[in-house]
Amino acid sequence: MLVILHPDISESSDEYKETWNYLSNLQNITLSTHIVQGQKQKLTEVYLIGETLALNQEDIEALPAVERVIRISEEYRILGRHKDSHRVTGFTYNDVRFGQDNLNIFAGLCAVDNRNHVEMMFKALKENNQQCTRMGAYKPRTNPYSFQGHGKSCLPYVFELAGKYGIKVIAMEITHENQIEEIDECLAATGRPTGIMLQVGTRNTQNFELLKAIGRQNTYPVLLKRGFGITLNESLNAAEYLASEGNSNVIFCLRGVKSDFGSPHRNLVDFAHVPVIKRLTRMPVCIDPSHSVGTREAAPDRIMDLMHATAQGVIAGANMILVDFHPNPVKALVDGPQAMLLDELPVFLEDVEIAHKAYQKRLQLYRKDTP
Amino acid sequence: MLVILHPDISESSDEYKETWNYLSNLQNITLSTHIVQGQKQKLTEVYLIGETLALNQEDIEALPAVERVIRISEEYRILGRHKDSHRVTGFTYNDVRFGQDNLNIFAGLCAVDNRNHVEMMFKALKENNQQCTRMGAYKPRTNPYSFQGHGKSCLPYVFELAGKYGIKVIAMEITHENQIEEIDECLAATGRPTGIMLQVGTRNTQNFELLKAIGRQNTYPVLLKRGFGITLNESLNAAEYLASEGNSNVIFCLRGVKSDFGSPHRNLVDFAHVPVIKRLTRMPVCIDPSHSVGTREAAPDRIMDLMHATAQGVIAGANMILVDFHPNPVKALVDGPQAMLLDELPVFLEDVEIAHKAYQKRLQLYRKDTP
Amino acid sequence: MLVILHPDISESSDEYKETWNYLSNLQNITLSTHIVQGQKQKLTEVYLIGETLALNQEDIEALPAVERVIRISEEYRILGRHKDSHRVTGFTYNDVRFGQDNLNIFAGLCAVDNRNHVEMMFKALKENNQQCTRMGAYKPRTNPYSFQGHGKSCLPYVFELAGKYGIKVIAMEITHENQIEEIDECLAATGRPTGIMLQVGTRNTQNFELLKAIGRQNTYPVLLKRGFGITLNESLNAAEYLASEGNSNVIFCLRGVKSDFGSPHRNLVDFAHVPVIKRLTRMPVCIDPSHSVGTREAAPDRIMDLMHATAQGVIAGANMILVDFHPNPVKALVDGPQAMLLDELPVFLEDVEIAHKAYQKRLQLYRKDTP
Amino acid sequence: MLVILHPDISESSDEYKETWNYLSNLQNITLSTHIVQGQKQKLTEVYLIGETLALNQEDIEALPAVERVIRISEEYRILGRHKDSHRVTGFTYNDVRFGQDNLNIFAGLCAVDNRNHVEMMFKALKENNQQCTRMGAYKPRTNPYSFQGHGKSCLPYVFELAGKYGIKVIAMEITHENQIEEIDECLAATGRPTGIMLQVGTRNTQNFELLKAIGRQNTYPVLLKRGFGITLNESLNAAEYLASEGNSNVIFCLRGVKSDFGSPHRNLVDFAHVPVIKRLTRMPVCIDPSHSVGTREAAPDRIMDLMHATAQGVIAGANMILVDFHPNPVKALVDGPQAMLLDELPVFLEDVEIAHKAYQKRLQLYRKDTP
Repeated sequence: MLVILHPDISESSDEYKETWNYLSNLQNITLSTHIVQGQKQKLTEVYLIGETLALNQEDIEALPAVERVIRISEEYRILGRHKDSHRVTGFTYNDVRFGQDNLNIFAGLCAVDNRNHVEMMFKALKENNQQCTRMGAYKPRTNPYSFQGHGKSCLPYVFELAGKYGIKVIAMEITHENQIEEIDECLAATGRPTGIMLQVGTRNTQNFELLKAIGRQNTYPVLLKRGFGITLNESLNAAEYLASEGNSNVIFCLRGVKSDFGSPHRNLVDFAHVPVIKRLTRMPVCIDPSHSVGTREAAPDRIMDLMHATAQGVIAGANMILVDFHPNPVKALVDGPQAMLLDELPVFLEDVEIAHKAYQKRLQLYRKDTP
Repeated sequence: MLVILHPDISESSDEYKETWNYLSNLQNITLSTHIVQGQKQKLTEVYLIGETLALNQEDIEALPAVERVIRISEEYRILGRHKDSHRVTGFTYNDVRFGQDNLNIFAGLCAVDNRNHVEMMFKALKENNQQCTRMGAYKPRTNPYSFQGHGKSCLPYVFELAGKYGIKVIAMEITHENQIEEIDECLAATGRPTGIMLQVGTRNTQNFELLKAIGRQNTYPVLLKRGFGITLNESLNAAEYLASEGNSNVIFCLRGVKSDFGSPHRNLVDFAHVPVIKRLTRMPVCIDPSHSVGTREAAPDRIMDLMHATAQGVIAGANMILVDFHPNPVKALVDGPQAMLLDELPVFLEDVEIAHKAYQKRLQLYRKDTP
Repeated sequence: MLVILHPDISESSDEYKETWNYLSNLQNITLSTHIVQGQKQKLTEVYLIGETLALNQEDIEALPAVERVIRISEEYRILGRHKDSHRVTGFTYNDVRFGQDNLNIFAGLCAVDNRNHVEMMFKALKENNQQCTRMGAYKPRTNPYSFQGHGKSCLPYVFELAGKYGIKVIAMEITHENQIEEIDECLAATGRPTGIMLQVGTRNTQNFELLKAIGRQNTYPVLLKRGFGITLNESLNAAEYLASEGNSNVIFCLRGVKSDFGSPHRNLVDFAHVPVIKRLTRMPVCIDPSHSVGTREAAPDRIMDLMHATAQGVIAGANMILVDFHPNPVKALVDGPQAMLLDELPVFLEDVEIAHKAYQKRLQLYRKDTP
Repeated sequence: MLVILHPDISESSDEYKETWNYLSNLQNITLSTHIVQGQKQKLTEVYLIGETLALNQEDIEALPAVERVIRISEEYRILGRHKDSHRVTGFTYNDVRFGQDNLNIFAGLCAVDNRNHVEMMFKALKENNQQCTRMGAYKPRTNPYSFQGHGKSCLPYVFELAGKYGIKVIAMEITHENQIEEIDECLAATGRPTGIMLQVGTRNTQNFELLKAIGRQNTYPVLLKRGFGITLNESLNAAEYLASEGNSNVIFCLRGVKSDFGSPHRNLVDFAHVPVIKRLTRMPVCIDPSHSVGTREAAPDRIMDLMHATAQGVIAGANMILVDFHPNPVKALVDGPQAMLLDELPVFLEDVEIAHKAYQKRLQLYRKDTP
């Protein structure tokens, strides 16, 4: 059972004391308190763990400091929405806000290949007023003899250049807990010129030891990709591993699922699940059109399938886009054929804007309509 | 090889005669002529069949009546686009235009249950200026002991009421070739008050004998649903069965695929394939959000998943929407839980309009951008 | 509710009359009687349809003619086993017995190409004491421009040669109800020299109109293939369509399912479902290793994968094998690469014999073991 | 390119020296030598890495110490068979031989729950002359709030009891590289009374960092489970990660794949792939009927589906069986419903023996048959 206290309530108030006194004397119940710092206010959430079935919800709702009581189910205990559409979502990291109600774009390199390409990418982002990006240093590859990423050796110039071009957050995949330390040390050594969002790839969605290690730190938020060969429910349970260890600043990323029904796309695009994740959990929802679609083919309307997929995610309320760009896709070491070109960035952003405005209009339509 | 002649060329012109004379004297080649009546002009397409590899494309392009020459591949010989983005698409039936460049909405009953519900549905459509609908009389069901539809007994009142409320086209599933005759006879008996689009369901996508029987008539256009357990390529090949027998007035309908990765939706929504079908074939693309999503669940933004899926299809250029409504879903004999209510129709239409306008803006963006 | 009477009970006996009198006077219950002619005895099964929940099972079991009472569930009403492991299975057709307790082999041509190949095949079968075969005259093909089988034109020589070489039963796929008549007429014209088992292919598993048409005749038994893109439950429901129309001489055939997890095999072999079908229904279970595996590749133990798959099906109790042979696979018009050669037939049969004997030993082991 | 030298050749022989001299002077080629200690002889394999396309295979085959030359493909470079059916397979660990030509049974507890159950299990194994088992200490679970295994705390009594009952090899899943050390320390502390085969679970098949860590040690052989949501090819590539880091004592385990076509089984049993893995790689092949089938349901022949699946794997040449037993399945903390009972162990072993003998007869049949 989750007890949400009135916003900004003070621990020294009488209401708080009376409430706390009552809760802490419940039989066979232990309390766990979470402070959620939202944009405008501070929320105190108290989890009641133990024999909660025996508790009377109305009695607790009547306590003076209590705003609302939610019965939580076993699944997604911390990240879950538990059928309460008013629960606060999201977090702010390095001055960038992530929530179920806004949209951030992370255009960048799937894999860092050399300093020059990184700088060209950052320059293009700055020129287009972007402050987030993706940069792959550690690349898990199906074949052990394929290029595995430059690893920590490229971090110094990536971070330094990020600072130079005003990049606030870089989504960066990690495949081993030691890499958190490598990233942290390099950020410290370069004066923390940028922020990092730790990304867990689709092959590691159920690598629970990695998730637990990432969950034990609170410095960096996490971008967890859906497992491409497991159910949505299993992937959402994996996200809960992060939260259960203490880090609930988690964004969930749809990236298509493996199915021969997806062909000629690389994966079967699953962006119809954007609203599902928002209904089941409080995680912001990211879409990755590049890995879902995996091709630069276009329809006769001159719009590439991956742009169509992007628009589909955004018009349904996606909160983040992870997309591959490259200054010279032919020379990209990983996934070149699906990358967009730097001079396509302005049109990409304009297209996303059209879909985003359409989503906002839709929001108004349904707000007006439903009482 | 496909030879497209100048639009509106007369068969009595010298250019035509010279061209025809040349083509008909080619060795080991037989000719097959198709007339495509577009919105503004008449197109003559001549298929060259046989040893076309030996032909010189430039020689043929130089003939006086020839507009363009397209080398066609084996797959989707007639319905295929064959990498030519300028090929004409679509057809007009009963004054309604169907093409890859416009949008028609077919809201209606999944299964006809009684006259009263049919009339309530038609009335709501008329009040909202709709002239197309869906009405299921013949229902293929997984279990032989489930309700199988009222069959031909309901046709008279469905057609009569359609006429009364100005319905121009009804999409109606058929499961046996005899039903074409039943429909035809009933339409004749009632004075042809409406038009019918023959719908082939997902369980019959590879029922080639049914497809051939439907393909042999040209009275009614066809709506072919994607097979839910086969690849897209296999479903598109099935559409070609219709065309190979003579009927190329075919609309292809995405309706989700069977996969446990789609849960909690009924199927895994596949609307990212909208642009793919337009690239590979000249068929208008329909989406069926009701059977794809299969639930009325909504996200915290108050928008139902099936509305999100609809918007996703439309913003990517879908040309037709097949959607279940019902005056009283609880009493619906088939698929009640996914049906929308009659009083949700205005908001549904408004939402579709927002997504459609967004698609048109996107079209302009890319037209401007690409030379 | 299903009431099984004592074997070989006479309708003129007092026990029968008393029983029938009782049953026919039950309120809100209608009776439907099925006679099952087994190998040694005649069984009378009476289905009680209607408000059976209100009936007292013990009262009915106490009636003098009643052997046993089984509560049946909605699914697989007629073909289902309904948790009763003692229900009689199978049937005899043209002197060949088909049941859940024996094994028949149908080696033959996937598609009839010419008279010579048919005769070579039959000759090889006769030399190896085989009296069943498969012969495809009507071939449903994914691409409309592929060879669709010789159809009824080849039937006369196929039937005549079958008679000449002592073939008792030919499994032959049909794709349209008219083909039943074509087959029937040709059999009559040639003096019924052989028997036919009507085969429904995987693309028509849910072609309910075809199933109903086949179910309405009792002359020919049916071999129904599992749908390759639907669940097992859905395929078993499709079999029930045959029975619900009156024909319960149905054999169910496993042939692999579509999944990219099956590669490098053509389909993902599903023969672990052999015991499942026997548990859920009373249908004999066929396996089709040729279409499941789809290749002649062999392991380093020199045994082809398709022979391994065959042995796997047989050691788990399969009752029928449908397997492609061809005198000259390179020249086969359909599915040549997976066909076995005529001179491999003796080893094939010996291998099946090893697996079958192993299954029988296993049967003894568990009979001994369980009381 | 792989150069296999004559068996048991001495490095001091003239033939060896001449050969080595030639190979080491090849331009743009580096050499990597692997010694394979087989049952009867020692094999020296020299990998030529670099510009091998330019090499003349015949020249190298003519060298005095060279037995055979194999052109290797990129995939499965070390573990692959490279179309050579004569390559040596397998290894011996703790006096137990593992190869593509024999069979080992690992019956045991899915998850260690308490000392008593472990001892009951070991006792039953000893009474049935078994020296291998499975014991889960570290359990990766979909839900973070489920029991995660007793971890290292149970190792001392598991190892001690294993020694007491003569267990030679325990297959034990690990989920983090640190657990190798925990196991190693505990084995050392208890006097190495038993051996351990490190098992990698299906959720970690593409956890490449874990695979690399395990591959860097040679003390323990590895049992790698197929990924349940990836292709066979991807799983085999994952195995190569182990070998590329130095450990090629790898057994590959089939355990079913995720698919709703598998229902009512827990997974879709994939044992038809047993011969495929033997053809593509030199790894011994294990089957896990418990997790594939996931139920104790039986057919009317009284044989449980999981026994049928076991027999299917064995008759196709499986080399190892991993199977769940439990003294009291109802009280098992993980996967109780699929476990077999201790008193079913003798019948299980007898059933496996029947299938194994059938496989050996089949081997003889094909040896006799093919020249």
